[in-house]
Amino acid sequence: MDKVNIILVGFGRVGRAFFELIKEKYDDCLQRYGLQVELRGIARQKGIVLLSSTQKVLSPSYFAEDDLDNLADWIKAITISDLLDEFREGVLVDCTPSNLISGEPGLSLFRLALDKGWHVVTASKGALALWPDELKELAKKKGLNIKASAAAAAALPTLDVGRRALAGSEIMAIEGILNGTTNYILTRMAEGLDFDEALKEAQEKGIAEPEPSMDIDGWDTAAKMVIIANEVLGTEIKLSEVQVRGIRGIKKEIAEKASSLNKILKLFGKCYREKASSPWKIEVGLALLDPVHPLARTSGTSKGIIFYTDTMGWVAVTGGQSSPKGAAAALLKDIISIYRP
Amino acid sequence: MDKVNIILVGFGRVGRAFFELIKEKYDDCLQRYGLQVELRGIARQKGIVLLSSTQKVLSPSYFAEDDLDNLADWIKAITISDLLDEFREGVLVDCTPSNLISGEPGLSLFRLALDKGWHVVTASKGALALWPDELKELAKKKGLNIKASAAAAAALPTLDVGRRALAGSEIMAIEGILNGTTNYILTRMAEGLDFDEALKEAQEKGIAEPEPSMDIDGWDTAAKMVIIANEVLGTEIKLSEVQVRGIRGIKKEIAEKASSLNKILKLFGKCYREKASSPWKIEVGLALLDPVHPLARTSGTSKGIIFYTDTMGWVAVTGGQSSPKGAAAALLKDIISIYRP
Repeated sequence: MDKVNIILVGFGRVGRAFFELIKEKYDDCLQRYGLQVELRGIARQKGIVLLSSTQKVLSPSYFAEDDLDNLADWIKAITISDLLDEFREGVLVDCTPSNLISGEPGLSLFRLALDKGWHVVTASKGALALWPDELKELAKKKGLNIKASAAAAAALPTLDVGRRALAGSEIMAIEGILNGTTNYILTRMAEGLDFDEALKEAQEKGIAEPEPSMDIDGWDTAAKMVIIANEVLGTEIKLSEVQVRGIRGIKKEIAEKASSLNKILKLFGKCYREKASSPWKIEVGLALLDPVHPLARTSGTSKGIIFYTDTMGWVAVTGGQSSPKGAAAALLKDIISIYRP
Repeated sequence: MDKVNIILVGFGRVGRAFFELIKEKYDDCLQRYGLQVELRGIARQKGIVLLSSTQKVLSPSYFAEDDLDNLADWIKAITISDLLDEFREGVLVDCTPSNLISGEPGLSLFRLALDKGWHVVTASKGALALWPDELKELAKKKGLNIKASAAAAAALPTLDVGRRALAGSEIMAIEGILNGTTNYILTRMAEGLDFDEALKEAQEKGIAEPEPSMDIDGWDTAAKMVIIANEVLGTEIKLSEVQVRGIRGIKKEIAEKASSLNKILKLFGKCYREKASSPWKIEVGLALLDPVHPLARTSGTSKGIIFYTDTMGWVAVTGGQSSPKGAAAALLKDIISIYRP
């Protein structure tokens, strides 16, 4: 049995779902994987709450009934750095928002955690999409993991399939429908709505953010493709090298034209190279899929990815719940895979 | 760098494809995984050929140009047991046919290999479907692996996804379209052929065997489901406990009725339990899928599997080349995963 210290940073929708999930799965992790997953602290903008100390370990049920929002005793004096020192080793679970311009707060967090000997498991995309080389190098030097399943389409298993399930084969190309918001909009446009109507509906349903740029301009898809390619192909592509075209304001006529050609319109991430000696390229843009394409039926908020290989043919994965719980499950999976490879 | 001794047993279509593949991938295994995959011997009904010895290691290129069938010097005096002793440790790669009644020759081979401290990687289904408990116990006792990706839908990654990509989630049910022959027949019947015509066409195209019982009576699907369930769920279900109904001689009217209901007819393997405290059950039989079911478009010789989970929603995998090369690639993947977990 191994004890795994967890420090959770970020307490938005995914952070909360992770908090609930590790309570729910505490016994299961112990029984199935021999892992005692102990949440030691939660850090968020308001401050840090220390849930247990090395001297006094609180069982998860202790804080099950509290509403953390209302806890009066956020220990503001404690920094994340103090927490990392206090528990010495474990996993920093990053549930902060993805900032695709600065990479923060992820970047500083990862540097700090790795420097202090902690593994990182992240749901945020910024740091890894912007500084893949630096972070890879740092983790390697320290013999630690940065795992990003939750940032790379979450409950849809993109990295595990690309790395493990296809081991020994050569991946020739990757294609993905990786953004639920744009896929929902395009699905509704194929059903007759125009772009603004479809976006508005997605916002009303809580699928699209009030500020939807990152999704509709294609950057969310691009960041996910970068993380997937770098992990699966061993490349060090940066987000700035990706050619990105989103779907903002596309005309209804494009959707109608696609239907009239019996094609399905998707926002597609593609990673490929011209020939084996060429560098890998990532592109994000609209694609017209033939109805028999394995991802053509990936509609609504669903996601999917396909790997083309030399020896195993193509392998497509679809599904994976698009929700904070799905992302939390991907974080927990990464924690398990660090300790139980 | 690790040196991996391989003894290949069985030299039919899959065995030959594996022989070709590890020549093709020799350098790649070395560079990407630090594994020197050395084929030490091939055992088949005609005899055993010893390709190298511990004293004199032959490079793969040495036998690249030989047609093994015409080698005069099959060393018939050497038994598999001698080969295992000679090289002391490594992986026995089993490419013998699947016998779902006796489990042989797999069963005897696995016992022998494990007893002598060798890992087993297999493309045959019999032994694992018939004696899951004994073989699991034996491998565990010896601290060795029996890996069966190639027997569990081959290039379609069923076991890796079920075990690794969904780690930490609870699998509630598994459904699979796991047999290319029956799926081809049903696809052609949906297009208007009757059963005999579709079977005859599949045989002419080399998709169906001249003796197609194992496929059309559902036993191939059942054996794959047993292997998948036991590996992914940790059960010890035996093939004899599975309720199996195949598609032999099904009437054209059934396919027509399915089309008229806008449903898609599939031979489906299902693994489920009534409630969390009930035992797991496996059933194989015809299913009428709604067109939006993630496996509904898995047509022709394609295969697919879907896992229903508590925290990640459903995850479906489709594709994976149905060919001897695809099976060989699954064998190589299992070898890599033993040495590079």
